[in-house]
Amino acid sequence: MESTAIERLINDISKLPGLGRRSAQRIALFLLKNKNKNLIPLIETLNYSSSKIIECDECGNIDMINPCKICASLKRDKTTICIIEDVSDLWTFEKMGFYSGVYHVLGGSLSAIQGIGTDDIKLEKLIKRVEKNKVKETILALSTTMEGQTTSFVIADKLAGYNDLNITRLAQGIPMGGEVHYLDENTLNTAFQSRKKIT
Amino acid sequence: MESTAIERLINDISKLPGLGRRSAQRIALFLLKNKNKNLIPLIETLNYSSSKIIECDECGNIDMINPCKICASLKRDKTTICIIEDVSDLWTFEKMGFYSGVYHVLGGSLSAIQGIGTDDIKLEKLIKRVEKNKVKETILALSTTMEGQTTSFVIADKLAGYNDLNITRLAQGIPMGGEVHYLDENTLNTAFQSRKKIT
Repeated sequence: MESTAIERLINDISKLPGLGRRSAQRIALFLLKNKNKNLIPLIETLNYSSSKIIECDECGNIDMINPCKICASLKRDKTTICIIEDVSDLWTFEKMGFYSGVYHVLGGSLSAIQGIGTDDIKLEKLIKRVEKNKVKETILALSTTMEGQTTSFVIADKLAGYNDLNITRLAQGIPMGGEVHYLDENTLNTAFQSRKKIT
Repeated sequence: MESTAIERLINDISKLPGLGRRSAQRIALFLLKNKNKNLIPLIETLNYSSSKIIECDECGNIDMINPCKICASLKRDKTTICIIEDVSDLWTFEKMGFYSGVYHVLGGSLSAIQGIGTDDIKLEKLIKRVEKNKVKETILALSTTMEGQTTSFVIADKLAGYNDLNITRLAQGIPMGGEVHYLDENTLNTAFQSRKKIT
């Protein structure tokens, strides 16, 4: 019974990640119920975002300036690059506030199924940055999924030729607050194999 | 660490019903990751919706024409009005397809807490429609929540003066597929009090 325009609106909203048809319907009605208060300001914000937010040519972060605030900052150590999958990972690191190097946002993981190859994750660019800035350490901070681990392996392999470069990855083991009897086999096995001497 | 424009975008998205900050972040990144494929078409759809979708002056439905398709249809019985809270309720009824009368969308329920009074739910308009169209039946199809029931009571009271008007409400009882031992006390009590003779 929905008219064409409403159908199109619901369809487009339901394409957003995490939203199904029911939630898209709810959002569409919310927007249409009070256009001046809900719909028009959202359109303005989207237009503003579209024109103002740009990708950093250096690291792949998004910001209103290019290079981004982090790459432009004199306080950040350009010889340490933390390699991450997505901008949201960058936000998580920055919220913690302990990291003072720069980032490299891959924009995804290698995935044969999703058709994401080495060209799509800005690997060449990473290598160029490593060479140009005489990078001392690259920290692989990718997900411990199949795709993430494959990507880490490929990147580590590509970077292996640089003599003075340390290639590190995040520690793997029991998460803080984790209870041993709830751990999956993989995590427990990894934690056991990487056990550390304490005295 | 998010820039002002990104912060504004995430904020505006998280105001949509059912979305928290995390899902708003995810949607914002999805939109910004591929502006031409994701963000620009969404802006176009929202602009199109904003200009094309209007509220029906007669019943409160939303459509691209005014009066809406249902009110304009010669096949619909104008002497039966189904009173509902929201346009999504209308969609649910229309999907079933068994109802051939028209609707009256209140746009909410009476609620002292949310400050929704009789002026906000188009009560006067309903009364005018009942008078103008010599309506024979008004079906109260509101939620069986406190607010919905109060609203039903107030509307029934206002309409009680019209002699030839039947005021009905949806039956209350065990939902189809409902298991008795999972029912809440209120539902079971209502179903018990309204029990029907079967032979």
